[in-house]
Amino acid sequence: MLEDDRETIRVCIIGATGHTGYVLEGIKKDLSIRIAGIARGSKGEEIKDFHNKLNKEFDYDIPLYDDYREMLRVVKPDIAAIACYFGDHARVTVEALERSINVFVEKPIATTFEELEQIKNVYKKAGVNLAVMFGTRYYPWFYTAREKVLEGAVGMVRLLFAQKSYKLGSRGTHYQKRDTYGGTIPWVGSHAIDWLYWFSGEKFESVVAHHSKKYNRNHGELEVTAVCQFKMTNEVYGMVSIDYLRPKTALGHGDDRLRVVGTKGIIEVANNKVFIINKDCQGLQELPVPSAGGQIFLDFVKQIRGRGSCLVSVEDAFYITDSCLKARQSADEQRIIYFNKD
Amino acid sequence: MLEDDRETIRVCIIGATGHTGYVLEGIKKDLSIRIAGIARGSKGEEIKDFHNKLNKEFDYDIPLYDDYREMLRVVKPDIAAIACYFGDHARVTVEALERSINVFVEKPIATTFEELEQIKNVYKKAGVNLAVMFGTRYYPWFYTAREKVLEGAVGMVRLLFAQKSYKLGSRGTHYQKRDTYGGTIPWVGSHAIDWLYWFSGEKFESVVAHHSKKYNRNHGELEVTAVCQFKMTNEVYGMVSIDYLRPKTALGHGDDRLRVVGTKGIIEVANNKVFIINKDCQGLQELPVPSAGGQIFLDFVKQIRGRGSCLVSVEDAFYITDSCLKARQSADEQRIIYFNKD
Repeated sequence: MLEDDRETIRVCIIGATGHTGYVLEGIKKDLSIRIAGIARGSKGEEIKDFHNKLNKEFDYDIPLYDDYREMLRVVKPDIAAIACYFGDHARVTVEALERSINVFVEKPIATTFEELEQIKNVYKKAGVNLAVMFGTRYYPWFYTAREKVLEGAVGMVRLLFAQKSYKLGSRGTHYQKRDTYGGTIPWVGSHAIDWLYWFSGEKFESVVAHHSKKYNRNHGELEVTAVCQFKMTNEVYGMVSIDYLRPKTALGHGDDRLRVVGTKGIIEVANNKVFIINKDCQGLQELPVPSAGGQIFLDFVKQIRGRGSCLVSVEDAFYITDSCLKARQSADEQRIIYFNKD
Repeated sequence: MLEDDRETIRVCIIGATGHTGYVLEGIKKDLSIRIAGIARGSKGEEIKDFHNKLNKEFDYDIPLYDDYREMLRVVKPDIAAIACYFGDHARVTVEALERSINVFVEKPIATTFEELEQIKNVYKKAGVNLAVMFGTRYYPWFYTAREKVLEGAVGMVRLLFAQKSYKLGSRGTHYQKRDTYGGTIPWVGSHAIDWLYWFSGEKFESVVAHHSKKYNRNHGELEVTAVCQFKMTNEVYGMVSIDYLRPKTALGHGDDRLRVVGTKGIIEVANNKVFIINKDCQGLQELPVPSAGGQIFLDFVKQIRGRGSCLVSVEDAFYITDSCLKARQSADEQRIIYFNKD
C-alpha cells in the first residue's frame, strides 16, 4: 500500500558488485522510491550490463554517470546505495556522508581501521542515516531463532558456533587482492561474527583467528579457509568457521549454520530451518519459520522517514566491522587481539 | 570362534568410574579372557556395587581386593584395566607398567604434563603394551568417515570442526575437583581433539582454548563450556566445541559431531550417521555405516598376542593427551600455547 503523503525517495546506486539486490528488491516493492542514477564506484568495475539490466527491469530511464562524485553533486539523491569493490566502500561512503547523503552500504563498510575511524568521524557530523547490509539478520530463520533466544527459550547464552561455507566458483580479480577484497574474514565472516554478537548480547573481549590461501584455485590472495575464536564478556565463547570449499555439486550456494548453547536449551539454524531442544520438547523440535521477514532496504527508508529503524544499528555495524578487522589482524599477525587493550 | 591354541588372558580391573564397559563387552565376546580380580583405584571410589554386578554377569567368582597394589602383586595379571578417578589414571598406570603388566587405561592417561612424562619413561622400559580408551575411533560412523577421508573422498583436509555435547545430570564429587577430574577439555574434549588429529593426519602447531565453570549447577570446579582452536601443520585449522548443557529432554546422552572440509568435498558425522558432498553426488549424500565395528579391548588383546593392533597407537595416545593438556593450559593461562616452543 502506497502512502500518499510520502515524498519520493531518490536513490543513486554506486557500484554493481555487492548485494545491490537488497536495494532493487525494496524499490520494486515501494513505488515511492526511485533510482535517480547509477555509476561505478571502483576503477575497472563493470557497470554497463548492470545499467542495461536496470533499464529493462524498471519502467523509467535510469541515468548512467561516468563519475559517481559528479552524480552525487548533480542528482543530490536522498540515498547513496553503495556496493562497489569492497576496498572502496569506505572512500565512497565518506564522500556521500560529507555531502550529507544517507548511505546504505554493503559490508564491510571499511577494510582498514583507519577508514573505519574516518567514517565514524564523518558520520558524527553528517546528520544523516547510515546502514550496512547485514542482510542475514532479516533471513526469517535467523530472525525467528533470535526471537526465541530473546524470549529465553535457551536461557543464558553460553557458547556459539557459526558457520559460513560458500562455493568458490571463479571470482573476478577484485576478489584476488587484499586491497580490493579486504579479506575473507571481513567479507564472508562478518555475518557469522555478527550472529555471535547479535544472539549473545555480549561484547567481544579477545579474538584469535587463522586464515589460509592454500588451495584457493588460482585466486591470488583470497583466503579459502578461516577460523575465529572469540572470548566474550561473561565467559561466553564464540567460534566461526569459514570456507569457500563447498563443492559445486552441493545444493545452493551457501551453508549457513548457527548453534547457540544456553543454560536451558540449544537452538540451531541450518538449511534455512530452526531447531530447538529445551524442557518444552522431547528431543529436537523444528520451529515454524515465516516464509518472509522484513526487508532491510525498506526498513532503512522507513528509518530515514522517521518511521522505524533497521535491525542493524549503525553502532552495531561499526562494532562488527571493527571486530572483523581485529579478527583479520589476529590471523595476519598470529597473535591474540584484545578489544580493550590494543 | 574360540581359538584353542590361545592362552587365557587374565585381567585385573582397577576402578569402577570410567568406561569399564569396553572391557566387559570384550571379555563377554571372548571366553579366553577372564577377570582375575577387581579393586578400587582411587580413595573413596565405590567398588562393591560394581563387584556385585560383575559377579552376577559372569559365571565365575571374581575376587575383590582392598588394595589394587596387592592385587597386582598377588594375581600377576596379563592386563590391568584401569578406570578409576581420572586424576589417578597416571599413578595406577605407572604402578602397573613398573610391574611389566600390560595396561588398558581410560583417557586421559594423565592429567598433568609431569605424569605424562613419567608414564612415557616407564613405558619405554616396561616392554609391555599400553592402550588408552579412545573408544570413539571404533564407532562405526567415525570409522566409516575416516576410511572415506583416507580414500581421498574429500581431497586434502583443510578445516575441521568437532563437537562434544553432553548432559550434565548430577555428577559425583570426583568430577567437581580439578585434582580428581582433570578438567573438561581432557575428559570430554580428548575425543574431539583426537578426531582433528586422526582425520587430518596433521600435527598441532598451536592452540588457544577457553573454558568456563559458570552455570555448572553446583559442580564445583567442573567446566561446563569449553572451546579450543588448533593451528595445525600445512595451515589446516581445527576447532572444538565442548559443553555439558545438552538438555535432559534430548534423545541420547551425547551429541558428537565432526565436519571435515577438504579440497574436494565435505564429510560430516552427526547423529551416528555419515554425510558427504563431493563431485560424485548431487547434494548431500548419506553413507552406509555398518551396524558394528571392531572392539577396542579385543583389539588390545590381539595386540598383546601379537596378532594385530589397536586403532589408537600408544604414540597417538601420548600425543593426544599432551595436546589436551596444552589446550587446558591455554584455557587456564589465557595465552597461545605453541607445541614446539613451550
